[in-house]
Amino acid sequence: MTSDLSGSPQPGSAEILCVGTELLLGTITNGNARWIAEQLAVLGVPHLRQEVVGDNRARLIAAVQQASRRCRLLITTGGLGPTPDDLTTEAIAAAFATPLQERPEVWADITAKARSRGRELSPSLRRQALLPQGAVVLPNPTGTAAGMIWSPLPGFTLLTFPGVPSEMKAMWQATAAPWLRQAGLSQGVFASRLLRFWGVAESALAEQVGDLLAASNPTVAPYADAGEVKLRITARAASPEQASTLLAPVEAEIRRRAAEACFGADDDSLASVVLAALLRRGESLAVAESCTGGGIGAALAAIPGASAVFLGGVIAYANAVKQGVLGVPEELLERHGAVSDPVAAAMAEGACRLTGAHWGVAVSGIAGPGGGSPDKPVGLVHIAVAGPDGTHSAAVRFGSSRGRAWIQTLSTGEALDRLRRRLSAS
Amino acid sequence: MTSDLSGSPQPGSAEILCVGTELLLGTITNGNARWIAEQLAVLGVPHLRQEVVGDNRARLIAAVQQASRRCRLLITTGGLGPTPDDLTTEAIAAAFATPLQERPEVWADITAKARSRGRELSPSLRRQALLPQGAVVLPNPTGTAAGMIWSPLPGFTLLTFPGVPSEMKAMWQATAAPWLRQAGLSQGVFASRLLRFWGVAESALAEQVGDLLAASNPTVAPYADAGEVKLRITARAASPEQASTLLAPVEAEIRRRAAEACFGADDDSLASVVLAALLRRGESLAVAESCTGGGIGAALAAIPGASAVFLGGVIAYANAVKQGVLGVPEELLERHGAVSDPVAAAMAEGACRLTGAHWGVAVSGIAGPGGGSPDKPVGLVHIAVAGPDGTHSAAVRFGSSRGRAWIQTLSTGEALDRLRRRLSAS
Repeated sequence: MTSDLSGSPQPGSAEILCVGTELLLGTITNGNARWIAEQLAVLGVPHLRQEVVGDNRARLIAAVQQASRRCRLLITTGGLGPTPDDLTTEAIAAAFATPLQERPEVWADITAKARSRGRELSPSLRRQALLPQGAVVLPNPTGTAAGMIWSPLPGFTLLTFPGVPSEMKAMWQATAAPWLRQAGLSQGVFASRLLRFWGVAESALAEQVGDLLAASNPTVAPYADAGEVKLRITARAASPEQASTLLAPVEAEIRRRAAEACFGADDDSLASVVLAALLRRGESLAVAESCTGGGIGAALAAIPGASAVFLGGVIAYANAVKQGVLGVPEELLERHGAVSDPVAAAMAEGACRLTGAHWGVAVSGIAGPGGGSPDKPVGLVHIAVAGPDGTHSAAVRFGSSRGRAWIQTLSTGEALDRLRRRLSAS
Repeated sequence: MTSDLSGSPQPGSAEILCVGTELLLGTITNGNARWIAEQLAVLGVPHLRQEVVGDNRARLIAAVQQASRRCRLLITTGGLGPTPDDLTTEAIAAAFATPLQERPEVWADITAKARSRGRELSPSLRRQALLPQGAVVLPNPTGTAAGMIWSPLPGFTLLTFPGVPSEMKAMWQATAAPWLRQAGLSQGVFASRLLRFWGVAESALAEQVGDLLAASNPTVAPYADAGEVKLRITARAASPEQASTLLAPVEAEIRRRAAEACFGADDDSLASVVLAALLRRGESLAVAESCTGGGIGAALAAIPGASAVFLGGVIAYANAVKQGVLGVPEELLERHGAVSDPVAAAMAEGACRLTGAHWGVAVSGIAGPGGGSPDKPVGLVHIAVAGPDGTHSAAVRFGSSRGRAWIQTLSTGEALDRLRRRLSAS
């Protein structure tokens, strides 16, 4: 949740209207809205509202008319195809009582594309050559569904795009983005930076930086996501350089206050940060995983070039594997149980011994839903890090209420974070 | 494009309002709207409009008031967190000039959850215990952000959910769905069945069942998702029994045509199907993973009760681990290279030998972006399955264009599918 970057009524603002019953039925996710929103942010065009309606003429006309009273720019996606339920162009023309006209250049393009693909020219394609009188063609370089740039009212412009994401994006980049850059809708340039944190609750971090959350430029907005907390700093300025100049001191101040909890920025992940630190040190890493079942290894292997540091390890799901492969003494398993600090420590050391790695990370816990007890409840996880300066193991409790996948994801993150903190301290 | 299932003005209809500036900035995709839309379709509640607004009090109030004039049911997501820009509850109360009240049961729940996680009770959490007078608590089983069920006007009800998808879904399933089922909003019952396939292309499957895709009740819709292909069969009828009666013969016909490629339905996954088959046979499983780095183990460990079958295995990312831990002969590595059938086979057999498992699955491939050669390009993966009746290893090529994560995900699925087919054949 972030505070709004812009004031209340915004005559220079944009809205997105996505048309398609498949969106209302939940058949597909509205990735077009996200993509266009991101492009508008980059161009500095304020964007205050998104709407979705189905392939229904009356509701489509009403939505277009309402938007024309609220905003300066309406971007639509969907409903430009050749079938009878593709209604967007026709409904927009009707919304402003304007007749449709066949555009010879669009029809010529449709004809040429159909021919080059060896397709029959189906009569329904002819509908796609119709645009409201006065509208400018927004060409579709790849498909047959052209869009339009049209100002049916003073101070209100419509841009229409097909729903097929690749066609929409190609049209945006070739024609719409250049048009928007010169249309005087930009209210400056946005630049943003995403800072990433582990080991601090969203509410605690929000309190630490409460004064910054209240600021308006740059804005600072917190997000939480499966154990990780993020702060997005967004600045608006006349140029990218000025926006970066606004960002830098706020980033520095947040890093100062959050200290160690801030593990990276933008595309960093705990795995990438740990691998980069080990690469700098010329050291290697192995894992020994019980309740995560391979999740830590998979997170490391997801990073390109992981093989320079990550040797592998053991998935010791069964106690016999902990004992037989990792060499955890039977006596430790019997005395403390598999979910215990001594066993996690022996697992981490076993991973180092077996692979020759400098560092070993081990996890043993109760992911649930079964297997918990009053002493060792679901969500209890012991995490150990073995390294050149010794082995440390400690428990963490993730609770049972969020379920197995949550416990496994948080265990993976927590294990990598323990290693990260050890590496930064030594 | 699909035609609208419902007529024009719909007094019994639902709308979705998603709140969050991060949606307007394009930072995240609106997956919540899709998920809720899908649930409404299953419940038979017509849903005609979705809207997104930012964390802005005035626009939020306006959007809620406008929706209250158009629809019977408004579902909101987002803005229920503890930070100052979480405005949804407060704006809804203001939209209907109703005071907020602290709910002791919500506060008690927040307190208990904070304690069980060993967290400080930050004062900002207190805001989350406030709801408008007259609203019913919509409990959040996993997080601290409770929602509400509230009818501020006759014939208009609001349901609020947090933006965190896992919390929203848990609240929907525990409380909202049962409430909606008895609220008299359904216009007929939808029943649906999701069939899952591996080892067949979406276009090939669509051709096999082309006649069924054209039918209107039940409808059959194909989806593709990282190697897996799905067909959703949806029937509408007066009762759940009638809807099921419509579904059954279509499901049977699809299964007949797709044969072995159909691995399950609804919540099944390749991992759950493989684990269930092994459990029935009383046999155990181990893995040996190179380019997947633990992904197969993590997929298995994600299934509750996996420990009855899955013993663990070795993440053999480095060749030294393949050799030293799994016992792959040096001579095989030298002669064929790590990415080869003989090495994958030796890895699978090594996993069995080391853990005592009946079955071993091994993967060795080139996930990229580096490490490819003309002979062994990025995307080439060798997968072996070792079992009581012998070891089989074969290569598969996933190509390089979709990147590392895609290759790792498909390798994991393909490995589990190879085992599934071996188990069903023996």
